Amino acid sequence: MGSFQFRMGDEVSGLPRGPTVKKCVKLAPMHHATESGSVGPVVEQFADFHEPFSLASGQSLSGFTLAYETYGTLNADRSNAVLVCHALNASHHVAGTYAQGPVNLGWWDNMVGPGKPLDTREFFVLGVNNLGSCFGSTGPASLDPATGQPYGSHFPVVTVEDWVRAQALLADRLGIAQFAAVMGGSLGGMQALEWTIAFPERVRHAFVIASTPRLSAQNIAFNEVARRAILKDPDFHGGDYYAHQVVPSHGLSVARMIGHITYLSDDDMAQKFGRSLRDNGGGYRFGFEAEFEIENYLRHQGEKFSRYFDANTYLLITRALDYFDPSRTTGGDLARALEPARASFSVVSFTTDWRFPPERSREIVSALIQNGSAVNYAEIDAPHGHDAFLMSDPRYHAFVRENFKQLRAQI
Amino acid sequence: MGSFQFRMGDEVSGLPRGPTVKKCVKLAPMHHATESGSVGPVVEQFADFHEPFSLASGQSLSGFTLAYETYGTLNADRSNAVLVCHALNASHHVAGTYAQGPVNLGWWDNMVGPGKPLDTREFFVLGVNNLGSCFGSTGPASLDPATGQPYGSHFPVVTVEDWVRAQALLADRLGIAQFAAVMGGSLGGMQALEWTIAFPERVRHAFVIASTPRLSAQNIAFNEVARRAILKDPDFHGGDYYAHQVVPSHGLSVARMIGHITYLSDDDMAQKFGRSLRDNGGGYRFGFEAEFEIENYLRHQGEKFSRYFDANTYLLITRALDYFDPSRTTGGDLARALEPARASFSVVSFTTDWRFPPERSREIVSALIQNGSAVNYAEIDAPHGHDAFLMSDPRYHAFVRENFKQLRAQI
Repeated sequence: MGSFQFRMGDEVSGLPRGPTVKKCVKLAPMHHATESGSVGPVVEQFADFHEPFSLASGQSLSGFTLAYETYGTLNADRSNAVLVCHALNASHHVAGTYAQGPVNLGWWDNMVGPGKPLDTREFFVLGVNNLGSCFGSTGPASLDPATGQPYGSHFPVVTVEDWVRAQALLADRLGIAQFAAVMGGSLGGMQALEWTIAFPERVRHAFVIASTPRLSAQNIAFNEVARRAILKDPDFHGGDYYAHQVVPSHGLSVARMIGHITYLSDDDMAQKFGRSLRDNGGGYRFGFEAEFEIENYLRHQGEKFSRYFDANTYLLITRALDYFDPSRTTGGDLARALEPARASFSVVSFTTDWRFPPERSREIVSALIQNGSAVNYAEIDAPHGHDAFLMSDPRYHAFVRENFKQLRAQI
Repeated sequence: MGSFQFRMGDEVSGLPRGPTVKKCVKLAPMHHATESGSVGPVVEQFADFHEPFSLASGQSLSGFTLAYETYGTLNADRSNAVLVCHALNASHHVAGTYAQGPVNLGWWDNMVGPGKPLDTREFFVLGVNNLGSCFGSTGPASLDPATGQPYGSHFPVVTVEDWVRAQALLADRLGIAQFAAVMGGSLGGMQALEWTIAFPERVRHAFVIASTPRLSAQNIAFNEVARRAILKDPDFHGGDYYAHQVVPSHGLSVARMIGHITYLSDDDMAQKFGRSLRDNGGGYRFGFEAEFEIENYLRHQGEKFSRYFDANTYLLITRALDYFDPSRTTGGDLARALEPARASFSVVSFTTDWRFPPERSREIVSALIQNGSAVNYAEIDAPHGHDAFLMSDPRYHAFVRENFKQLRAQI
């Protein structure tokens, strides 16, 4: 059987991936775009790496593919590249749409484009799909060259550090010695942080948004319950469900519902759904079907997610979240862990984010200040909880825009 | 096959319930108990009701049994009775131990006993197991007299209002026309509130602790995910798993893990577990087994719970939580909903309770004050989250003790 393929918002399909494109294909610059236009139709690209790649776990991959996209033009001295790192359920498709197929807007299209806070008329933007994902880079649903079967349970556990080293190999391939900025929200912010530690000379600025230097016990707890729902789904088959032509959709759906609750603020949920009933005139139905609007919404989110996301990838990415903790090797001293960093920083948090609340960002800021790093910090009083980093709050976007303006002097 | 029986902390057993005791058996008063002693060994009792009982849903039970316990002595004019209402996973076993079997301390033993805040030397305390439970009162695992089989999916959805009306029938049976107080934490607090509305002349004082006048969208969301995990467990069999000699233990375990996270505060979890690894010297294991202490703890809690609690009961009780909203019939006006109340009130909240935070208790207090009801309110700065209502914080217990002292004048 072929390898499963997943794409954001699409149904699961068994089709093999399209032909790989190994060299950087630059999109035409968009000089005529409006003040806040879109990068328009984009083409995903693939880079294959044939050298063995050692992982933090001690395991290795004999080779791998990274899916990526680029927007804007790399300038002559290759100084205007910005790497955008994705979080749990996103991909390299950061901005624009795909020409073929249904409209499929990039996950940060409100942030990245001509005239947008990360302006593709000035910067060359790179989005990379991480190892272990289900959106084109090598992951558990890919064929293991050693067996000709999907990796499934044999795909090694990957870490934020592994992802960053793989991204660096792609930067080498694209001829990018140093990024003007590495940028990410949530788990993406962890990657930005890791870049400044692992490759201090290769990143001039880091945007660490709605992130944390490490998960709390409560964060790990939510991940563990989500994983438990997947691992105990009888359709999981120990991770090798591909061979059984099934997916552990119920477990994955529950996992997504749990995650989704933690992305929204209590207040925002109250505003949007409150105690509204689907059948508002009808009163209670005295059963267990979805009768509150919030139930219906969550079920829908869970079911949709379970149709396009790979359960093994969910396990891997939540584990990478759990494991990330740069201060682990410095006895809990975050400042010491961040000492190698040479970058300047922009840190953003959102007041209603109870997943990674402002205290966590302030911890990063304090450590950086202690080290004498240059830091701009914004704490945005936005109502949307953790998901605020994906929204276009004007104060938030103005802050990011202003910080990118300051970086223009160096490109 | 026989009816399943569950008891707090015990394994599921298929043994039929012991003989029912239909009249009130009073325990001997404990004049010689120490200042903060235990009520000692207690005996659970059963009251059978043979009249049809109509429910809020429009369905009815042809009859039912309530399991209950009492501590202390009902005085001559029957004015010293206190009803203690239980929350999601508890029962009528409020205080003391069972003479037979392993030590099985009542769930509020630190609150109820000779010399304790609710002093059984002064008050006659009644604990009642609610309809739909799995600890002795009629519930989904009981035999439906119409079929001779466990009710399973045919057990009707019950509400807080139904529970309170059933408790009132038991009070009639025990000759208690009016309670000195009705008291409960969390879902138990909702019952205390409902008592003051449904039977204003039968309750002189209500203790509403760590509770809320209605669930928020986020509260309902967590309940929905928990139910979803149960409903989609293949061993659930549409609620009729008893006949299949299985229980949906994985779904119930996930449900409990979700619930448990919401009972603890973020800070308390960080204090107790942090990012500690089970194998502290060993480093990460790069797999999905429980390696953080918090993972191990939650799995253990989930698995333990799934051995003694009934999944259908979990569905019913979470739905009763969702539905409770006295202001639903008054256009959202809580004060108007509470207008019938004649009781005085003690309301307690805990600062780190993010399940039912202090704002929700303050909403109750405001409504009561607006109505001119007498209210004592304590907001306790305790670290233990929602579970704080089960702990013995000295300020909390002193407040309850003081409030009961004031009630002594009326008995």
